[in-house]
This record gives sequence, structure tokens and C-alpha cells, in this order.
Amino acid sequence: MTVSLSAIAQQLGAELKGSDAQVSAMATLAEACGGDLSLCLDRRHLSALRQTRAAAVLIPAARASWAEEAPGSVLLVKEPRLAMAQTLAILYPPALIKPGVCPGALVDASAEVHAQARIEPGACVGPGTIVGAGTLVESGVVLGPEVVVGAACRLGANCVVRKGCRLGDRVHLASGVVIGARGFGVAVGPDGPLSIPQVGTVVIEDDVEIGANSTVDRATLGVTRIGRGSKIDNLVQVGHNVQIGKHVLIAAQVGLAGSVEIGDAVVMGGQAGVADHVKVGARAQIGGKAGVTSAVAAGERVAGFPAIPVRQWLRQQWRLRKPAKHKTASNQGEKK
Amino acid sequence: MTVSLSAIAQQLGAELKGSDAQVSAMATLAEACGGDLSLCLDRRHLSALRQTRAAAVLIPAARASWAEEAPGSVLLVKEPRLAMAQTLAILYPPALIKPGVCPGALVDASAEVHAQARIEPGACVGPGTIVGAGTLVESGVVLGPEVVVGAACRLGANCVVRKGCRLGDRVHLASGVVIGARGFGVAVGPDGPLSIPQVGTVVIEDDVEIGANSTVDRATLGVTRIGRGSKIDNLVQVGHNVQIGKHVLIAAQVGLAGSVEIGDAVVMGGQAGVADHVKVGARAQIGGKAGVTSAVAAGERVAGFPAIPVRQWLRQQWRLRKPAKHKTASNQGEKK
Amino acid sequence: MTVSLSAIAQQLGAELKGSDAQVSAMATLAEACGGDLSLCLDRRHLSALRQTRAAAVLIPAARASWAEEAPGSVLLVKEPRLAMAQTLAILYPPALIKPGVCPGALVDASAEVHAQARIEPGACVGPGTIVGAGTLVESGVVLGPEVVVGAACRLGANCVVRKGCRLGDRVHLASGVVIGARGFGVAVGPDGPLSIPQVGTVVIEDDVEIGANSTVDRATLGVTRIGRGSKIDNLVQVGHNVQIGKHVLIAAQVGLAGSVEIGDAVVMGGQAGVADHVKVGARAQIGGKAGVTSAVAAGERVAGFPAIPVRQWLRQQWRLRKPAKHKTASNQGEKK
Repeated sequence: MTVSLSAIAQQLGAELKGSDAQVSAMATLAEACGGDLSLCLDRRHLSALRQTRAAAVLIPAARASWAEEAPGSVLLVKEPRLAMAQTLAILYPPALIKPGVCPGALVDASAEVHAQARIEPGACVGPGTIVGAGTLVESGVVLGPEVVVGAACRLGANCVVRKGCRLGDRVHLASGVVIGARGFGVAVGPDGPLSIPQVGTVVIEDDVEIGANSTVDRATLGVTRIGRGSKIDNLVQVGHNVQIGKHVLIAAQVGLAGSVEIGDAVVMGGQAGVADHVKVGARAQIGGKAGVTSAVAAGERVAGFPAIPVRQWLRQQWRLRKPAKHKTASNQGEKK
Repeated sequence: MTVSLSAIAQQLGAELKGSDAQVSAMATLAEACGGDLSLCLDRRHLSALRQTRAAAVLIPAARASWAEEAPGSVLLVKEPRLAMAQTLAILYPPALIKPGVCPGALVDASAEVHAQARIEPGACVGPGTIVGAGTLVESGVVLGPEVVVGAACRLGANCVVRKGCRLGDRVHLASGVVIGARGFGVAVGPDGPLSIPQVGTVVIEDDVEIGANSTVDRATLGVTRIGRGSKIDNLVQVGHNVQIGKHVLIAAQVGLAGSVEIGDAVVMGGQAGVADHVKVGARAQIGGKAGVTSAVAAGERVAGFPAIPVRQWLRQQWRLRKPAKHKTASNQGEKK
Repeated sequence: MTVSLSAIAQQLGAELKGSDAQVSAMATLAEACGGDLSLCLDRRHLSALRQTRAAAVLIPAARASWAEEAPGSVLLVKEPRLAMAQTLAILYPPALIKPGVCPGALVDASAEVHAQARIEPGACVGPGTIVGAGTLVESGVVLGPEVVVGAACRLGANCVVRKGCRLGDRVHLASGVVIGARGFGVAVGPDGPLSIPQVGTVVIEDDVEIGANSTVDRATLGVTRIGRGSKIDNLVQVGHNVQIGKHVLIAAQVGLAGSVEIGDAVVMGGQAGVADHVKVGARAQIGGKAGVTSAVAAGERVAGFPAIPVRQWLRQQWRLRKPAKHKTASNQGEKK
């Protein structure tokens, strides 16, 4: 895809400084060549900016003075990360899928695959399952029986959606994702632990994206739900009956135990965990590696394990490192 | 499946209060309709109990007074979670599998698949591998060469059992599980790290269940073993030569390093880890996110990192949050 | 494979004490039988050494006196773990692969599979993809379009390598590994979070090994790289644009956020994490469960969260457990 800088500027609402030119790719400042667009979002990259061979560079409007350092043209943008996302979407439009059921795909006779969907070789579509228009089902994907997949979804190679689970439109499951495995519910019986049958299902709403090898368990009763527009990274565990709101961001290796409730627009750092039945209010921010064991209020920022307000946690860390502050004159005396 | 309340009461050893009725499904108090059975295990759900449309509700015998709040019939049960498991098993009996090797399954000519087993489309069964009666091998499963799978197992879509590993009867592997990958053993050679060949195997005993995308490595020499009836959640790592006892419960994202020994009936919370060669005694309880770096005695409860007895850990946390307790009069004076 | 002790001694540069004999397998001291070789690396195993039925035992040269306890022959070795790796490689040489595209493999007409490679039943090789000599592609593996796989690689069942990613020679991907999934980059748009297209790729250099169900994301721009000879355990997350040096060792469940840089020969313990854009210098050692939030100097050893030098962390832990040291006489008096 080749596009003029002026066309990009118009779509982004950006200001073009310097001559117009055609660009066809995006690259880092160091790697960019003639027809490339690059970006400089951080002061640490100013020396790379001066030496770049990029035809043009995206620069935050709030750092307009950096434009003087750029050898080529400049696009001043208000929201740099958003501009980057939009520019990449312009230069690298998602490949059009070639519709059809490929030879080597294993589609049950009772499945309903839309004529505009694509099922790649080696993918399996179970009985009664529905696949919407424009959806790509890559090789090795297994859709169990009675699954519903909406339109314009992307199901990465070797992901699995189990019986009766439902995906909205534009859902992206990366490779190796497992939707609808049995939840981990155990009762103690006379002969040891006994798994509680998990007869619920999973609903993934529109525009949700889930990263590679993440797992979302089906509910014991009812539904495990991931709300519209939420983005989940790799190797994340979502337990049975979890309710995730809209526009939630969850980084890699987070674990949500059974029946956790995550409000809208919550942000969770990598390797954090939330104990079962705990509620996290809307817009709360959970630090990386935090262990949340009790309710978090809307908008609150917590860190540590057990998770506490970030400021309090930082004070704890500071005290741990400055033990002298706790010592009395007599204690210090002992050391001498 | 439609069953009468009196029949369920008889099987559970429960007391039926109110009129008998036919029920065919289980649902939450809020979602239950006419023919549904529900349950109320927690005081917080009493208002939902009053408004439920369920035909009947399971209530703990120890909370018999709640029965008065229920609009319909009540089953008083001694062990509520166990009763829930049993009731779900009655109302949702596991689907009978339709035996046979489906078209599209790739079964080596030298494999021995029992006539009462089912191999779904796209599953691969390697040379010399044995699959027992009543076992379901879902699509995308790969059984390496010389694998032994017992009777009545459920192998979820896209799980893998590698060369020579052995599963007992009624083993349940969720989707994406990998049994028998190479253990992580490294020696330092003259040209950098060198992987130690892993020539052992894995044995999974009867009634073990392993959650989605968990991994169990083969032993360097000998056997990595998971004991009878143990239940393991999603994304758990079991290293080479680990020995897990019977009836152990391991929550999601736990990691067991090489040669760890876990005694019978141990319970491990999510995201906990155990360092290599460490022994955890029978019935010990390891808190969520704990990092176990030295032996844990039988029956002990530990938490934190490095893991220490729970009481001691709770005291530490309390002290960290109440720093004033450590301050001397003179320190406090400074603050004024 | 049957080999004489004297031949093994010669290849290892070991000293043979006792009579020569043929051995054909390696086993633990307790399990070894007549034709087996065993090893004793730890004082705790001396009683097992005395009772072993192994034909011969590897013993560290630095513990030569243990040889007197061995019932059979002894090989004194300088580097016991390296000797173990070498001995296993002699006794268990990797199986020769039988070249060819097996029936049931799904290879695109435009793919270039070397005549000496093997593609097993159910594996999928995408358009334009290249597979080198001596490489084994197991069942259920999915290679996307335009992938390059070098010579003598082993791609475990159900692993995935996505579009355009490149593997060197002798790369080992365990089952369930996902290379080249979309990185987790999100911009905040007017209608909620928006994924930033990830148009970069992944390069895995020669002799890298990656454990089961680990994930390596493609770069936003440019390349996510894993350096020559690095060994990565199971369930590890490598984020977009991460740069891992040569001979790095990463234990299970580690998470590396976007743009992290790991120097040569770094060692990371299990469940550790590194925050985005942080640099870890060559030969640094990161403790298990550590959370690295700022740069680590070359050769430094850190632990804890936030990670600090190991000695400092140990002192913190010691102080936390010995609170009396911080108490004043008056505080102690209160308790009486």
C-alpha cells in the first residue's frame, strides 16, 4: 500500500511539515529507508531522529520543536500512539480473506459456514456450529459442537472453542487460546476430590482480543463473560463464572480465579492475580504481580500482595529499604 | 434429563421440604425458571432466594431456617458443594460417546484403538499407541508413538501426549495440555548451555484431571508422576521428575520446578511456585502466589515468598502496615 | 545403543575405575539394573550408591572417595552435569528421522520442503514456507505463510509459527509453542482501546530451544529476537520487540514485557517478570518470582519485587522475620 503523506495527515488530523511524498511502510528510525515513515515519541530517540533515512517522521505535537531535528518531512500528531495505530492500519490493511472451505478442512455436515467465511486446511468445525461472514478460521482450529462465531472474527491456528460457547463480531483469538474448558470446581467427596460438572458456557462480546495460549473457562452455571472491546494478552487465565467488563486491558500471565468481577476499563499489569469472588471496580488499576484478595473500589490503584493502594505500597517498600529510620539510638548503639 | 425432587433427595440423602416436582436443569437463583433446580449456599444470596422462580432450591442443612424464605420446594443437604456436584451429575450425565474412528482421523496402522473408543476428525494416533475402551480423543489431539491411554478418558481438542507416556483410567486432559515435553535440564558446556537429554517418561494415574494448556514434562531418568485423583487447573507447569501424590489440588498458573515432591492431599493456591527438589508434606496448604523454597512439613500452612507459616506471614503483613508500632517516642516526636 | 565403559570414558575424558563392561541405558541408582549406567552427584545419595545394581556409576572427580562405596565400576568425571548430558547423548542418540511428507500432511503447493525433512500427518505448511534438511515437523504443527525453518529443527506437535517468522538451524520448539502472535500494543481511541497493528516479525537463532506452550510475540515494527543457544522453559511469555541475547537461560512461567532487552548468558528463575523497556545486562541473574522494574547491571544478581540486589533482599527478609531487633526497650516493655 502506497499513500501520500498529505493523505495520511488528513486522515489523522495531523499537521504536515515539509514536502509531500509517497510512503509505503513504517519502520524504526534506525531501520527506515527511502519510502518509509517512522516515528519519534521519546526524547531518547532524538539522535536516531537526526540520522534517520525515513521519508517522514511522526512527532508528538507537544514536541513540535523536535521537527527541526528531522532530516525529512514531519507529521505533527496529537495522540502519538493512536496516530501510530491509525497509520499502521492505513499502510498495512488487514489482508482480505479468500472465502471458502479449503480442501483438508473438516467441517461437519450440520455446521453453517457463511459463504464469505474461510476455513483453512486442517481446521475442524463441529456439528451445529455457525461461522459468520468474513471470519477466518485458521488451520488446526477446533470449534466444538454448537459454537457460534460472529462476523469478521480471526481465529488463530490451533485455538479451540468448546461446546456451545459464543463469540461476537470482530473477535480475535490468537493461536492456542482455549475457550470453554471445564472450570476448576471441586467438592470433597467420601473418596477424595470430585469435580463439579461445569454446565455453563462462555460469551465473548464484540471486538474482544485474546492473546496466545490464554484460557477462558466455562461457567459452572450461567455464563463466563468478556465484555465488548476488552483486550487480553498471552497466557492469561480467566476462571469459571468470571465477569469482565468493557474495554478492560489485561497483560500477560494474569490469573482471575472463579467468579471474579472486573469492571469496565480496568487495567491489569502482567502476572497479577485476583482471588475468587473478588470485585474490582471500574477504571481501577492493578499493578504488575499484584495479588488482589479483597474488593478494589472504582478508580483505585493497587499494588503488591496482598494488594494495597499504590501509595501505601510504595511507602512500605521505602521503609523496607531504609531500616535505619526505625532504629532507636540505643539499637544503633548496639551495633557500634 | 428430567428427574423428580424426591429421587434427587434419595440419591443425595437430602430432606425434601415442600411438594415433589420434576426438574430438568440447574441454574442460579436469578436465572432459574419453572423446571429448574437452584441452590443457595451463602447468606448474601438470601434476597435472590426470596425472588427466585426455581422449582426447588438446595439449602445447607445447617441453614435450615433459610427454607422459609424459598418460594418453592427445598432440599436440605449436609454437604452443599458435594450435593451440587452430585445433582449436576444427575441432571447432566456425561454424553455417551459414539464409538469409532471418524473420517479425517489419522490413526497409525500399528495403533490399538479399542472398539468402544472414539477418535474424532483430525486427531492423530501414533504407532504402537493404545487407546482404551470408552475413551474420547477429540479433534486435533496428537498422541505420539507408544503412548498408553486407559479407559473412559477424555482428551480435549489439541492436547498432546508424547512418546511413551501413560495415562490411567478416567483421566481428563483439557484442551492444549502437553504431556511429556522435554524437561528443562541444562549443563554448561564449553560452547554454552547444552540441554540434557530427557529419556524418562510421564505416568498420570487414574481419575486425574489436568486443565487447559498445562504442561507436564517427562523425567530426565525415570518417571514424572501425578497421583490418583489429583486435580490440576489451567496453565500449570509440572517440571521433570516431579512426584505429585494422590488427591492433590493445584490451582491455575502454579509452577513446580524439577524433582519437586508434593504429598497426598496437598492444596496449592493460584500462581504459587515450588523450587526444585523441595518436598511438600501431605495435607500441606500452600497459599496463592506463595514461593516455596524449602521443605514444608505435613499439614503445615504456608504463604508468602519465601513461604513461611501463614500466621507468621500475616503478622509480617500487619507490621508492615502499622509501622507506628515500631517507632519510638523520639521518632514519633520528629513527625509532630 | 550398547557402548563399553571404556569408550564412554574416552569420549568424556573420564577415568574408569574397575572392570570394563557394556552398558545400554542410564537409570537412577535405585532403579538401575545389570546393563545400566547410573550417577551419584550428591552426598544424600550415598546410601543408594552402596545398594545400586548399576554396572557403573558416574561420580564427580572431586568426590573420588565415593568410588569406594560403589559395588560396580566407576567413571570419575570433572563436570558431572556435562558428563551426564554427554553420556545420555551417547546412549540415546536422537532418532533418525524418516524423510518425506506423510500422507495426511497438508503442504501448500508453493511451500519448499527439503527432501530430507519430514512432515508428519496432520501438520500444515503454508504458502511460500521453507523447511530445511533434517527438520522434523510433527503432527498438528501449523506453519503460516512465508515462514523459514532451518535445518535439523524439531517442531513439536501442535506448535505454531506464524507468518514470516524465521527459525535458524537446530531450533527446538516444544509442543504448543506459539511464535509470532500479535504483540500486545494498545492505543486509546475515541471509542475505547484500539490494538496497534503488529507488522514486525520474530527471528529465532540457531540452537535455541523453547518449552511447551511458551509464546513469542512478533514485533510491532522490526524484529523480536532470541539469540543463539538460548534455552527457554515452558509457559514463558516473550513480548513484542523483546531482544534476548545468546546463551540465556529462562525458567518456566517467566514473563518479559514489550521491548525488554536481556543480555548474553543471563539466567532467570521461574515466574520472574521484567517490565517493559527494561534492560538486563549480560550474565545477570534474576531470582525466581522476581519482578524487575528497572535496569539490572551486567553480572548483577537481583531478587524480590521490585527486584533489588540479592544481598539487600535477604537482609530485608531477615529483618522482617526478626522484628524484635527494631523494637525499643519501651516497646518491649508494653508487651510484658
